Amino acid sequence: MNQAPAPAAAAPRPWTRRHLLSLEGVCAAEMQRVFAEAERCLPLVMAPGRKFDDLAGHCVANIFFEDSTRTRNSFTRAAQLLSADVIQVSGEGSSTSKGETEIDTARNIEAMGVDALVVRHSSAGVPRNIADHVRCGVVNAGDGRHEHPTQGLLDIFTLQRHFGPDLAGRRIAIVGDIINSRVVRSNIFGLRTLGAQVIVAGPPALAPASLGALGVEVSHDLDAVLPLVDVVMMLRVQFERLAGQSIASTHEYRDGYALTERRTRLLPEHAVVMHPGPINRGLELDSEVADGPRSVILRQVTHGVAIRMAVLKLIIAG
Amino acid sequence: MNQAPAPAAAAPRPWTRRHLLSLEGVCAAEMQRVFAEAERCLPLVMAPGRKFDDLAGHCVANIFFEDSTRTRNSFTRAAQLLSADVIQVSGEGSSTSKGETEIDTARNIEAMGVDALVVRHSSAGVPRNIADHVRCGVVNAGDGRHEHPTQGLLDIFTLQRHFGPDLAGRRIAIVGDIINSRVVRSNIFGLRTLGAQVIVAGPPALAPASLGALGVEVSHDLDAVLPLVDVVMMLRVQFERLAGQSIASTHEYRDGYALTERRTRLLPEHAVVMHPGPINRGLELDSEVADGPRSVILRQVTHGVAIRMAVLKLIIAG
Amino acid sequence: MNQAPAPAAAAPRPWTRRHLLSLEGVCAAEMQRVFAEAERCLPLVMAPGRKFDDLAGHCVANIFFEDSTRTRNSFTRAAQLLSADVIQVSGEGSSTSKGETEIDTARNIEAMGVDALVVRHSSAGVPRNIADHVRCGVVNAGDGRHEHPTQGLLDIFTLQRHFGPDLAGRRIAIVGDIINSRVVRSNIFGLRTLGAQVIVAGPPALAPASLGALGVEVSHDLDAVLPLVDVVMMLRVQFERLAGQSIASTHEYRDGYALTERRTRLLPEHAVVMHPGPINRGLELDSEVADGPRSVILRQVTHGVAIRMAVLKLIIAG
Repeated sequence: MNQAPAPAAAAPRPWTRRHLLSLEGVCAAEMQRVFAEAERCLPLVMAPGRKFDDLAGHCVANIFFEDSTRTRNSFTRAAQLLSADVIQVSGEGSSTSKGETEIDTARNIEAMGVDALVVRHSSAGVPRNIADHVRCGVVNAGDGRHEHPTQGLLDIFTLQRHFGPDLAGRRIAIVGDIINSRVVRSNIFGLRTLGAQVIVAGPPALAPASLGALGVEVSHDLDAVLPLVDVVMMLRVQFERLAGQSIASTHEYRDGYALTERRTRLLPEHAVVMHPGPINRGLELDSEVADGPRSVILRQVTHGVAIRMAVLKLIIAG
Repeated sequence: MNQAPAPAAAAPRPWTRRHLLSLEGVCAAEMQRVFAEAERCLPLVMAPGRKFDDLAGHCVANIFFEDSTRTRNSFTRAAQLLSADVIQVSGEGSSTSKGETEIDTARNIEAMGVDALVVRHSSAGVPRNIADHVRCGVVNAGDGRHEHPTQGLLDIFTLQRHFGPDLAGRRIAIVGDIINSRVVRSNIFGLRTLGAQVIVAGPPALAPASLGALGVEVSHDLDAVLPLVDVVMMLRVQFERLAGQSIASTHEYRDGYALTERRTRLLPEHAVVMHPGPINRGLELDSEVADGPRSVILRQVTHGVAIRMAVLKLIIAG
Repeated sequence: MNQAPAPAAAAPRPWTRRHLLSLEGVCAAEMQRVFAEAERCLPLVMAPGRKFDDLAGHCVANIFFEDSTRTRNSFTRAAQLLSADVIQVSGEGSSTSKGETEIDTARNIEAMGVDALVVRHSSAGVPRNIADHVRCGVVNAGDGRHEHPTQGLLDIFTLQRHFGPDLAGRRIAIVGDIINSRVVRSNIFGLRTLGAQVIVAGPPALAPASLGALGVEVSHDLDAVLPLVDVVMMLRVQFERLAGQSIASTHEYRDGYALTERRTRLLPEHAVVMHPGPINRGLELDSEVADGPRSVILRQVTHGVAIRMAVLKLIIAG
């Protein structure tokens, strides 16, 4: 296993990126800059009634070619708490359904006086492609199987707030449909940069040994992994993507890879449970665990707004 | 007929509810508290150009598992006039269409720094169920055939503003598909608490005698009822819900229960006509009546924004 | 050809209209009033970070019975930059899908404390019809084949900013599906009022000689027109509307009426290229032209927000 020798407790440094398209290539100091800003923002999310005016008069456009209530609303709330306006563009009913290219849609929205485009698309690379054709900032809100960098940041921020800022040597298991997950990829890049160790676990079809090239350990034996980790991050089983792949049955999947209450007893006492949502209760994660004392799942959601506030502020005004 | 002996002109009292899920169980003093607050809010709705900042920095989420342009926009406008931000969550395209439970959706939205959830659902009890699982306030914006408390409040507020604050002894006829109507139930609970008498009228399949258990008079003879009432509230005929029920035909329904211009002549001179909208013109209500001098229908809409301002303010900041 | 003898450089005059439903009948001085206001607004669109508070506390409702991401967002951004709130009403999922009339929808939204209704509909005349039944202002955002006045104004504003305020004698070619285009009609009325000459070009089925009645020249030979004009405005080919009409094939259409890079060489050196969007790249307009030095297409988008700010301000507060 080839762990990154990154300076885990790097000091924040000035933000120079115009876009946030991936966590691959983002250094520890840049992440700490985001986390420092998110710390400042978090109290506003946790106790509503105040706003910052950092982005007053500015406008964020959520361009979601692929729909997502959760991520879209998280970015919307983040923009609101910075006093920015928001424009919502969805794939359905939008000009792209009339044959317009994604780049034309983005350039048109930019031309309306918009400072940042938050872009989700079912195909990898669309946010990057858009970023190459606009002057304003672009935040990747999930592109195909590529990356979902703000999800990676919010997951890592949640771990830092739970375990302390230095994650070097911490071990995180990510469980489920690894090969198709943009959330996994962003977490792997971010966590390794901060010196943490990532173990991915799932059935061979969804967690092939080739993933080792990303610098992670690959396991098909979740029960053997659980006693070794500080964190277990469960992924949503996405049936729509699994069609035709080699999972014999839901029952067999649960047998091997669901986080049941029984299985959580294999975890060290201090270990926490994460899930990016939405949860399939009773499938990859049992309700007793999702709502239990180890779960930091709702904290992930709250932290997500703070992280997106930080990213929007740094992209637009930083 | 078993009319409630409620203190109709009760003084307002401090608001202590975290949620507004029904009018059943809400006492007269609580309703008067809402109405007093709505009186303060109403001028802003009637003459745009000013806002209150009561809820600045706060956020209201409209979670509409069942769609409704009218109610959703009324709550949105109410939140805007109190300087609150709004997040829109719809059933379609939302995480629930991916199998997430309603409670998870609600808890996730709450975790984004939201102060009140306005919830509509096609099933009775969902807002109550959500309220049991969140810390923030929940307003029922209509759940199945159960209740639609802000509609009840806005209807009663409209009557108070028209007839004066004391509704004791006033007689209100509600006409149409009584058995399936959440609007009716909220009106019955609210009106009876204030000492008014409710007569429900409709074909036996839609207004069965068993409704008498709610403390109302049941009639199948609208022409006999009209001369006796101060108010006639027409309900929308909801064809989608009527499938398979025993209404012989639209023609027959109109014969018995439509409020035609001819039929309004049976009303006392001072009586007014209400409708919660959207109207089926020419079906349950003729255009001459809907747009005529007795109609207070658009006033109901305006009062609805003031009532929702009052409720949001009391729930969040009251 | 019967060109209008209008005073092209008329001074702005006080605004007295409650609605903007068409450019037919709008005089030069009124247009100049809009343009003067748009000049004041434009810097806010071009360099985000500031807002005007002209419409603070006011509310604009976008009522789009026919969907349009682009126009809806342009009006939304315009309202935001004037500090107005916005309510979104779409045809789908709205009360009209329950059988409510457009007028009832509009009157209900107005009754919620809304100052201006921005209305798009697939049928000509609906905004006019609504305007006849409400007290607040109505802006036509495109109705059937009738008009799209703010598109006409933004196109003309773009030409004024490029060529100077006096457009008298300027020649504008509009190319494509003329007969079905509301954009063309608004441009013709506005441009002729300012003394410009309009030549429409397209296949006979889409640009019949009868269009001459609007005071424009009609041509079926684009190559002959191009050397004579200052501006060529390409229209979107709307396949959904062309079904059954006499265009032999896309290939034949391109042969005669696409603006290819080769064909732009026929234009005078100073001529500019416009398109209302969304573009069918490679159909009516080649990418080399859309993104080339003659294109003012994205400027049209930016100017659109400024024009809509001006119109909303004049309608509500002017």
